[in-house]
Amino acid sequence: DTATSSSSVSVESKTKLLCSIYLQLKSQEKADFLRHLVMNYGVNHSSVQKCARSFLSSQEQGESSRIKAEENLRSSLTPYYIGLFGHIGRLEGGVKFLVDLRKDVLYLLSMLEPNKSIAPNIKALNKTLRDLLSLWFSAGFMRLQRVTWDSSCDMLQKISEYEAVHPVRSWGDLKLRVGPYRRCYVFTHSSMPKEPIVVLHTALTTEISTSIQSIVNHAHLQLEEKLFQPLSKDVVEDPKNIHAAVFYSISSTQKGLQGIELGTQLIKQAVKDVLAEFPRISLFSTLSPVPGFRDWLLLELSKDERGALLSSFFLTDEEYTSLKDHLCKNNAVSVREQILEMLKSNQWLQDANLSELLKVPFMRLCAQYLYREKRRGYALNSVAHFHLRNGACIWRLNWLADKSPRGLTSSCGIMVNYRYFLEATEINSQRYIEKQHVEASEQFLHLLGLSHHKSSL
Amino acid sequence: DTATSSSSVSVESKTKLLCSIYLQLKSQEKADFLRHLVMNYGVNHSSVQKCARSFLSSQEQGESSRIKAEENLRSSLTPYYIGLFGHIGRLEGGVKFLVDLRKDVLYLLSMLEPNKSIAPNIKALNKTLRDLLSLWFSAGFMRLQRVTWDSSCDMLQKISEYEAVHPVRSWGDLKLRVGPYRRCYVFTHSSMPKEPIVVLHTALTTEISTSIQSIVNHAHLQLEEKLFQPLSKDVVEDPKNIHAAVFYSISSTQKGLQGIELGTQLIKQAVKDVLAEFPRISLFSTLSPVPGFRDWLLLELSKDERGALLSSFFLTDEEYTSLKDHLCKNNAVSVREQILEMLKSNQWLQDANLSELLKVPFMRLCAQYLYREKRRGYALNSVAHFHLRNGACIWRLNWLADKSPRGLTSSCGIMVNYRYFLEATEINSQRYIEKQHVEASEQFLHLLGLSHHKSSL
Amino acid sequence: DTATSSSSVSVESKTKLLCSIYLQLKSQEKADFLRHLVMNYGVNHSSVQKCARSFLSSQEQGESSRIKAEENLRSSLTPYYIGLFGHIGRLEGGVKFLVDLRKDVLYLLSMLEPNKSIAPNIKALNKTLRDLLSLWFSAGFMRLQRVTWDSSCDMLQKISEYEAVHPVRSWGDLKLRVGPYRRCYVFTHSSMPKEPIVVLHTALTTEISTSIQSIVNHAHLQLEEKLFQPLSKDVVEDPKNIHAAVFYSISSTQKGLQGIELGTQLIKQAVKDVLAEFPRISLFSTLSPVPGFRDWLLLELSKDERGALLSSFFLTDEEYTSLKDHLCKNNAVSVREQILEMLKSNQWLQDANLSELLKVPFMRLCAQYLYREKRRGYALNSVAHFHLRNGACIWRLNWLADKSPRGLTSSCGIMVNYRYFLEATEINSQRYIEKQHVEASEQFLHLLGLSHHKSSL
Amino acid sequence: DTATSSSSVSVESKTKLLCSIYLQLKSQEKADFLRHLVMNYGVNHSSVQKCARSFLSSQEQGESSRIKAEENLRSSLTPYYIGLFGHIGRLEGGVKFLVDLRKDVLYLLSMLEPNKSIAPNIKALNKTLRDLLSLWFSAGFMRLQRVTWDSSCDMLQKISEYEAVHPVRSWGDLKLRVGPYRRCYVFTHSSMPKEPIVVLHTALTTEISTSIQSIVNHAHLQLEEKLFQPLSKDVVEDPKNIHAAVFYSISSTQKGLQGIELGTQLIKQAVKDVLAEFPRISLFSTLSPVPGFRDWLLLELSKDERGALLSSFFLTDEEYTSLKDHLCKNNAVSVREQILEMLKSNQWLQDANLSELLKVPFMRLCAQYLYREKRRGYALNSVAHFHLRNGACIWRLNWLADKSPRGLTSSCGIMVNYRYFLEATEINSQRYIEKQHVEASEQFLHLLGLSHHKSSL
Repeated sequence: DTATSSSSVSVESKTKLLCSIYLQLKSQEKADFLRHLVMNYGVNHSSVQKCARSFLSSQEQGESSRIKAEENLRSSLTPYYIGLFGHIGRLEGGVKFLVDLRKDVLYLLSMLEPNKSIAPNIKALNKTLRDLLSLWFSAGFMRLQRVTWDSSCDMLQKISEYEAVHPVRSWGDLKLRVGPYRRCYVFTHSSMPKEPIVVLHTALTTEISTSIQSIVNHAHLQLEEKLFQPLSKDVVEDPKNIHAAVFYSISSTQKGLQGIELGTQLIKQAVKDVLAEFPRISLFSTLSPVPGFRDWLLLELSKDERGALLSSFFLTDEEYTSLKDHLCKNNAVSVREQILEMLKSNQWLQDANLSELLKVPFMRLCAQYLYREKRRGYALNSVAHFHLRNGACIWRLNWLADKSPRGLTSSCGIMVNYRYFLEATEINSQRYIEKQHVEASEQFLHLLGLSHHKSSL
Repeated sequence: DTATSSSSVSVESKTKLLCSIYLQLKSQEKADFLRHLVMNYGVNHSSVQKCARSFLSSQEQGESSRIKAEENLRSSLTPYYIGLFGHIGRLEGGVKFLVDLRKDVLYLLSMLEPNKSIAPNIKALNKTLRDLLSLWFSAGFMRLQRVTWDSSCDMLQKISEYEAVHPVRSWGDLKLRVGPYRRCYVFTHSSMPKEPIVVLHTALTTEISTSIQSIVNHAHLQLEEKLFQPLSKDVVEDPKNIHAAVFYSISSTQKGLQGIELGTQLIKQAVKDVLAEFPRISLFSTLSPVPGFRDWLLLELSKDERGALLSSFFLTDEEYTSLKDHLCKNNAVSVREQILEMLKSNQWLQDANLSELLKVPFMRLCAQYLYREKRRGYALNSVAHFHLRNGACIWRLNWLADKSPRGLTSSCGIMVNYRYFLEATEINSQRYIEKQHVEASEQFLHLLGLSHHKSSL
Repeated sequence: DTATSSSSVSVESKTKLLCSIYLQLKSQEKADFLRHLVMNYGVNHSSVQKCARSFLSSQEQGESSRIKAEENLRSSLTPYYIGLFGHIGRLEGGVKFLVDLRKDVLYLLSMLEPNKSIAPNIKALNKTLRDLLSLWFSAGFMRLQRVTWDSSCDMLQKISEYEAVHPVRSWGDLKLRVGPYRRCYVFTHSSMPKEPIVVLHTALTTEISTSIQSIVNHAHLQLEEKLFQPLSKDVVEDPKNIHAAVFYSISSTQKGLQGIELGTQLIKQAVKDVLAEFPRISLFSTLSPVPGFRDWLLLELSKDERGALLSSFFLTDEEYTSLKDHLCKNNAVSVREQILEMLKSNQWLQDANLSELLKVPFMRLCAQYLYREKRRGYALNSVAHFHLRNGACIWRLNWLADKSPRGLTSSCGIMVNYRYFLEATEINSQRYIEKQHVEASEQFLHLLGLSHHKSSL
Repeated sequence: DTATSSSSVSVESKTKLLCSIYLQLKSQEKADFLRHLVMNYGVNHSSVQKCARSFLSSQEQGESSRIKAEENLRSSLTPYYIGLFGHIGRLEGGVKFLVDLRKDVLYLLSMLEPNKSIAPNIKALNKTLRDLLSLWFSAGFMRLQRVTWDSSCDMLQKISEYEAVHPVRSWGDLKLRVGPYRRCYVFTHSSMPKEPIVVLHTALTTEISTSIQSIVNHAHLQLEEKLFQPLSKDVVEDPKNIHAAVFYSISSTQKGLQGIELGTQLIKQAVKDVLAEFPRISLFSTLSPVPGFRDWLLLELSKDERGALLSSFFLTDEEYTSLKDHLCKNNAVSVREQILEMLKSNQWLQDANLSELLKVPFMRLCAQYLYREKRRGYALNSVAHFHLRNGACIWRLNWLADKSPRGLTSSCGIMVNYRYFLEATEINSQRYIEKQHVEASEQFLHLLGLSHHKSSL
């Protein structure tokens, strides 16, 4: 093995060549390359068989033989392409290449018909890449940076382009998001220092925010659109006004790092950094969307077996009556149909009375969705799952917290605060992971009619 | 697996605790811990057996089952402790912890009697750690830095302490080694930025140096010992005097990274950096010791079958006669005994005539040692092996090139220039690795009586 | 004087207080403050009289007495407020305060009726401040920085806001101006490191540019207005295409530094920096506006004594005839009136034939304006004066080089290349300063009918 | 003046030439150059006379003429060489050149016989340079840096070489002085960023130190002399042990900046920096030498009019008797002679009993020296004057606080704590500067027999 490890000079130039060729391939050619890779440079099945048999027959021959046989078996199970990935990782820019390669693999997987015979091989390739990247993208290699208006334009442009939760509308908007009363944190990686891998936007506020508009002030932005007029004088932060840190957006930017969790670490380090500056802050919370709530509601409504009427799952009798009074005066269409229609068009918000009537049932249904809908025992909603796993609790639902079209379409305008009680996160996290226990506040449980006795679901 | 990957909050604090406990263990306790680790958190043999049998019986059941069975088998072969190492690597300072852990493992291995039943398990642990560290310590993660007198004292102190080849004698000496006409390069790693992982000392000279004294000027140093007198005015480099870059010392500092080759990359990047500054430099060479030459010579001499006389392997008849005339005038002891004696005491250097008589045979023998002594087909001498593998050629032996006690004891004062012809390194490297071809200059082959026909060993 | 220099502790806090009060004054209050300052803390005239008399009577009493008397006289002539400025300069941010204070003084001067009795005192204050600032803003304290897309957003926003010559239209435009084939240099000062004091925009081109549109591509910009679409992939510079460095915009940003020349130094350092990167570049030139040319032309036309006709100063007989043919077919208004009208409205550009007819006379008139119009013996045009003083020569006029409204209004679209022949700048500069000699190229002199004999005006 | 200010291109190269020539002159040639400079490029006396007469005759002609005449007079009083200094200051490295030039001027002054006719001219040159440098070396241009073992070797070598108060003995010693429980601060200047202009050594201790040995531990140092053995593991600071910040050494490094006070600012900024890190520290004090105390004592003793006996100024009757008993048992020499002798040889320290007998009188005499000896009304001792002017009080004398030969020779081993009560420094400073009031503690006044009534000298 001295020899193999050492042919580095010529291997390096060959590897570089391969990478530069791959980068110029078209989408379909890339797929062909990946297929070729898994079929010809994966695991040699017959060699594995041979080694497995050897191993089984070595059992009687003492520890040393057994370990040797295990070693051989392990070797035979290692796909050839892992050696190639090792060489690529050693190149400058190689790690980024592998991140992007995995993006291509994931895309190929999503395009493959599942019964294709090659699917398991591509899945194995995906797993190999994920395991490798997960070793490289561990917290020890990540660097926390605070991004401000003094950061590079290049970094700020990327921050802006990657912001998916609440899109940035102009450079004036962007300046506000990294300015006073805001903390924008990123993780960068030593192998691609100019790339923000995860981005966390934080607002420093007097209390836990109930609406995204209070943080991302759209009215204000219009003034800023005239980019090249001098922007207003910098506001100076007054520490006396800062009692809460509200995480209002967290984004992972690299599709190729799917499944490699870095957000948790970023939140932890952000909390540390905020505490170092403001030791007395005690309120840590998110202001999060509830993606999927409206779709879930539409689906549930459409499959309700009681037809035109609505089961008590959706509305109490009283609520039903009030809504019917309001909606059906001059209208033959059923309450259910009308709700379905208005949900689809987001028009219920225009009618203030209607909106008021919907508040209680929608908030209750959203609480149901977050608290009772499960996948493998854990919260179905991925945002809820992420924060519960980190040890947060579901603390409060906020009505009309995001009135943007995006907010209405994803969650009927409802947003949720996941609150981090620092001294409880470790135990919360453990109870959630081990026992699927969902920690929630009294006020939230109250929405579910569970307030006086602590949840024991 | 969602759940396992996510219990990060509590796992992190437990991992930290484990590490801090380990660091406080005494040497013997560490050994006990490592034994415990491999015996209880290694591979579960019976589980491997089960999986191996499953795998063999899955062969008929189609690709998908087979890949699944392979996956299970691979899992069963993964030692439990690798998970722990992953968690440690995620901690701040965790990578450094694992580097030091491997140092402990290597030390334990060196202390173990080889027939100990636990030895194979420790070896497996060592291999696991090496593979893991080799992923982290690849060139993509290393950062080239030039060290100068403007670098931190901390870095310079480490450079000085790690310099094993030609020990640094004072801060004045150190200042010269990072000053004008010198380039000191280090690789640092993003997870331990204050630690020089590999150190390369380079001298910029008018021609390829023939002696280490011309680079590390001991006479000059005495003046510098008065540390706190103002050091002499900085010499200013004159590019007109710079035609060669001579690598005169390269050291790896982390025992725990044994077997993970980074020196080659460092030399490559150093060459690039030198060329960027001095585009016309064409002479790249080392000035290297020949560790082991004297020991080899002593051994060969002592086992020479011709007893008191010396075979022609060592001396030609003419050389023998001259030496005998010189040595045995008043002395009954045989030439061989006297040579042995003087080699051991390094006293031959005191006698200028004798030294002159020894020059031709010692240079020839040293050439033999470098060119013909092999291990698994490659050069026995590790320094030669390193540079040949990188694509250098053996260019010149230099007589009395290192007259220090250390130089005499390791190689009778001989040093060698391995020269890097940039346009030929790739092909040289390949021919050495694939065909064990040793590239050497005419003048070197001449020492072996091979000059007119190119080597074809 | 030990005592005065040392009361630093309390003086500092008083000075700070004064500055913070001043900053909150309104415009009129600032003017009152400045009036109060010069009247009460300027020079004590009667004390000067006393010292002057002492001095005159000391002439007989030997060198020592004379020097003492001179010293006293000098002291009496030093306004009290200079001590205050010294204290302010010692504060953090104090230098910037004084720069802004001078801006206020200049504004006050521009508002004062010149016969106001206080005017000389304010002028003296202005001079004192200028002399002081000129000591602080000398090249030794300035730091050259190249601004790129990796510079801070804060810096780039300022670059954009300060760009007066060719206004920046969007962040996409800005990105191009600091991107490939561009070099944007700034001087910053150690006392205000975030402020670009002078900004120089440079284009790296294949030849000396003839039009600003080829550098600041307005067509291209429209595409970039969609700010948050990913900007196009970075173009990579190809050194083979780079033969010229064209300085197309230089701006001083601090009004308070009026009269303190830093642009010359910035150009010199920019040339050095470009040469370090591209040693073979030999073409250094500006692409400069000719501010004031159109106004001068309008004025000259309107005062031409020949009334409706035009003297040969403006048009040759042939030119006049051609223009008359073109313009007056169906028009009773005189050529002169029509030209005046079209110059005012910039409409001549719409008529391609007309524009063609105007080219020769306008180019000649512009050359006259640059070459013959003087102020105190030096070029009247301030841009020409700046570059001639630096040792450049007037190299080429470019027709329709800036077709923007701004370009038409200031110089009928004409731009000029001032070329820097590096080996000749020193002698050119000296000849211009000492003998008012204007260095110009053959092709430029040709416009004036002076081509075959070198200028000796 | 447009022309003069603008001949920058050729002026710059001439100025550079002049500087480089001056730097190569020998000491005597430099003196000749300076003489030539003041005689030929100083003030033109006859021109001053002319202007002074004009000025006096302008008095009747209104403000504007008067100011113009003043302006001319001021101009005529400005030495020509000040223009040269301005040009030099604009060069890179020019400010450092002027600092060194002033060093030469000061040296020349110290060598001149005071009655030399040229002396006043050289003094005027010195004053001009000092005023100019004082504008450049004001706090706004200074940058506070903390120096640690992570600072550059270059900086640390300079710190070590410039340390005059308690000389650094080895790199091990140096490492301790910038290590844990120490803060070493420097001021650097933007025009010479690698040069520490003022250096302040601070120890963080549990209480205000009574002896320099507890800070600069000479015993410890011997261990460190073996430079290249790994230095001991870094001690980690425990904030619980840190209650006091003791400034034990402050040095100005540039002779050419004599009389330009920067130490006060450095102490102020150091206090701020320490407070930012340890907000609860309340004890700020120096541990300072009393240079000149022994010389003063020797002088006073030798001129005491009572001859062999000693006046009560030196010893009380009781003290005299005890000392006589101790010293003169077997000795004919008078007490006075013996004390004089022992003071000169520093041998009194060897005799523990004697040392005990001397403690009370020496401490009292030292207090007298510090408190009552004056120069122009202020403390004669320059260290005392410096700290009193900064607003410190004389807090405590420490017996045998510096037993090194240097300490005995300068102050009989006594050191003094000047304590900074932060809330009182401003008022103390003012009272000292304006009324020469010396603030001192009860315990110090007690030494003078003044303890119960606050000083009103």
